[in-house]
Amino acid sequence: MTEADFIAALRTLPLHSGAEGLLDDAAILEVGGESLILTHDVIAEGVHYRAGTDPADIAWKLVAVNLSDLAAKGAEPIGVLIGATLDAGSARFVEGLGEVLDTYGVKLLGGDTIATGAPATFGCTAIGRATSVPVPRRSGARPGDALYVTGVIGAAMLGFHGTLEGAYLRPKPRLAEGRALAPLVHAMMDISDGLFLDARRMAVASGCTAAITLGDVPFAPRILAEGYLAAASWGDDYELLFAAPADLALPVEAKRIGTMLPAGPEPLLIDGNSPPERLGYEHS
Amino acid sequence: MTEADFIAALRTLPLHSGAEGLLDDAAILEVGGESLILTHDVIAEGVHYRAGTDPADIAWKLVAVNLSDLAAKGAEPIGVLIGATLDAGSARFVEGLGEVLDTYGVKLLGGDTIATGAPATFGCTAIGRATSVPVPRRSGARPGDALYVTGVIGAAMLGFHGTLEGAYLRPKPRLAEGRALAPLVHAMMDISDGLFLDARRMAVASGCTAAITLGDVPFAPRILAEGYLAAASWGDDYELLFAAPADLALPVEAKRIGTMLPAGPEPLLIDGNSPPERLGYEHS
Repeated sequence: MTEADFIAALRTLPLHSGAEGLLDDAAILEVGGESLILTHDVIAEGVHYRAGTDPADIAWKLVAVNLSDLAAKGAEPIGVLIGATLDAGSARFVEGLGEVLDTYGVKLLGGDTIATGAPATFGCTAIGRATSVPVPRRSGARPGDALYVTGVIGAAMLGFHGTLEGAYLRPKPRLAEGRALAPLVHAMMDISDGLFLDARRMAVASGCTAAITLGDVPFAPRILAEGYLAAASWGDDYELLFAAPADLALPVEAKRIGTMLPAGPEPLLIDGNSPPERLGYEHS
Repeated sequence: MTEADFIAALRTLPLHSGAEGLLDDAAILEVGGESLILTHDVIAEGVHYRAGTDPADIAWKLVAVNLSDLAAKGAEPIGVLIGATLDAGSARFVEGLGEVLDTYGVKLLGGDTIATGAPATFGCTAIGRATSVPVPRRSGARPGDALYVTGVIGAAMLGFHGTLEGAYLRPKPRLAEGRALAPLVHAMMDISDGLFLDARRMAVASGCTAAITLGDVPFAPRILAEGYLAAASWGDDYELLFAAPADLALPVEAKRIGTMLPAGPEPLLIDGNSPPERLGYEHS
């Protein structure tokens, strides 16, 4: 069963209204007049980090990828619950956990610990408080919107290949940018699985076509033109992708990379053409 | 690093006030005048279930053990986030997930899915709404309180050995009992790691001694006297253990198994004596 099939099967179960049909990375829970944002991500050796990675980096990445989901909702983090497998690196794991919690002012709420003989898997649930209501979703883009990204694309790919390691091991969730953008944008999400794949997801959820101009994408400096397609279908950058009116004065630094068009036969166009076959990372 | 060492290390990190010093199974989050209960448990092959277990049973147990933590807080479940490893059994996993969600009226809020080559690990975060404030903790027992358990002890042990399989594979969280008891008890927790170990934890957290009369423990019918110590140090029963005034008219069926005494040199006494060496299940 592929990830897409699994999620389709889950959609047949009783879903909470805040689950947004499992079309979004985070759930929205209305409690006592506040909107809480809840997200849960799992990372595993060989998928999200290599065997031999410093457990402090694993802890950083585990929390950072969840905070990135909160960032895309413009949420202020409240705390995290951690599910950890005990192993020889657990002391370093706790150090890295302390670093990421301190850096983003996030508190530990709880979690669970198990010991298995198998390679470690780590889970994190992050809870945040929405600072802007309605909370931005990936489904709100409208034809005519400009499409933007923060930061650069492809830094994590360089990091994976060893030339910019920090970007792959220690992504920086765009929490401040997300809060500044949340009241202004029509749609927002973080880029976790690849710019192309995530832009396509936003377009599908919004009933639009995302038309991206490849030459306008802010690729990391060391990426040459022949690496553009690879970088744009590489995950792990954790930048924000958002759709907003083209005349909006942006409160944060971001680069326009395209335009949302009315829905057509293909939800993603790259320089006006159908996209390459590989758009990003999907578990299968 | 053992589980106890790991949790001790985590206590040096910035903890949320609702984390209760990581001394409890669940965190309490005050939001907009409501008390939310958050808990996260991980289950893994070879630890919480055997290789070859029907994935529908795994899904049931995954959700049930988390709902049991909500039950101990007297909370009404709101929803769950699931972290799942994809494998050949994922379709059955979704079926079991549907069964446990339907049975307890719980909604799916979201989660994450990964594919690894390694044996599956599953995580669940459950969120509930407290129905009684202050929320019962394991730390509130007082000398003179009577100590009670719901249901029977040792059914999961029989289940593991194949004579009462459902009790091990499909534990039933005591949600209704927890809600009825929450306003009345001084301390409450679920028995996940063994009656003796969990009673000792309640005693330590409360600054008391738990004095248990072994002959008063409601062991599952097929457990003979020579199996009492094994059953009382076996986990996975998910019954509620609570301390309450001895003259309280109980709103649910429960059996008195002992008394809370002032703190002494040994926080757990069995028939007046020091307990056996093995009290329950601890990850190491």
